[in-house]
Amino acid sequence: MLEKDLKAAWAIYLNIDQKFCLMKRKGSRFERELIEELWENGFAAVRVAGSGASHFPCPDIVAGDGSAFFAFEVKMRKNLPLYLSSEEIKKLQEFSKAFGASGYIALKLPREKWRFFRIEDLKKTPKGFRIDEDVYAMGKDFHDLKGIIQTRLPYHDQKGFYGSRNE
Amino acid sequence: MLEKDLKAAWAIYLNIDQKFCLMKRKGSRFERELIEELWENGFAAVRVAGSGASHFPCPDIVAGDGSAFFAFEVKMRKNLPLYLSSEEIKKLQEFSKAFGASGYIALKLPREKWRFFRIEDLKKTPKGFRIDEDVYAMGKDFHDLKGIIQTRLPYHDQKGFYGSRNE
Repeated sequence: MLEKDLKAAWAIYLNIDQKFCLMKRKGSRFERELIEELWENGFAAVRVAGSGASHFPCPDIVAGDGSAFFAFEVKMRKNLPLYLSSEEIKKLQEFSKAFGASGYIALKLPREKWRFFRIEDLKKTPKGFRIDEDVYAMGKDFHDLKGIIQTRLPYHDQKGFYGSRNE
Repeated sequence: MLEKDLKAAWAIYLNIDQKFCLMKRKGSRFERELIEELWENGFAAVRVAGSGASHFPCPDIVAGDGSAFFAFEVKMRKNLPLYLSSEEIKKLQEFSKAFGASGYIALKLPREKWRFFRIEDLKKTPKGFRIDEDVYAMGKDFHDLKGIIQTRLPYHDQKGFYGSRNE
């Protein structure tokens, strides 16, 4: 049997379409590249399993370096602007708050290095958020992330604390 | 084509055997159950994608509640003792140190609640570590995990700090 036929049959069996699979694979490849670069830059980083499927809010990547913790939603685009739904930003915020991480959008454009964007720096649109040229110009790089010192409140104060937690 | 044939053909194509798949699936189910319970107990938790395959050290689950961070290696067994290789404990330690988490073994026995074990509390064996009845009796529960206050050194001190980081 041809490999192609087998793949197609398997996709039908799983009730998913191949285009979706291809998108997922491509997304995973970029996520793995970011994981590599995070480790190279001194962060321990993991890809989250089933980040699109879980009924709990969860990001694509979680990383930490012992002093700061990050939750990344990973995006790759051919060009700007990048549009983000209110829903996905809300989930990233919810997870970040519950975990104790800073939520960031990680964006890869062709022939550009990874750039990282805080939720506060995104531009609001009627249906969600946008990263345009202006926002992109303010994106952080790995060096900026390493400089972030996450301040932490004493335990009991922190439990009731729901503001922005770092930077 | 029968579902069974398709699965077998796919497994051969992927060069993996079905028993391994079944183990992985069963392991994943327990990991998802632990994720559920962690959220119920106030921790944001994620399953790590490809935790067995990555060339970076990575645990099965990463969790945090804003004040403490945990890396779990998840195990389910029919009975004690549980044996752990030096290699997997070393990887858990490496990840935990780099991320800034406390490394724990999460163990599920039939009709028992989840118990959590610090690496320091495991018994050394010639080839690795063991959780026997004595160690099991000292296992922590969710309530104990919630009581853990992770102390953090100031940023610059912490960068050169390689000791036990909490409790």
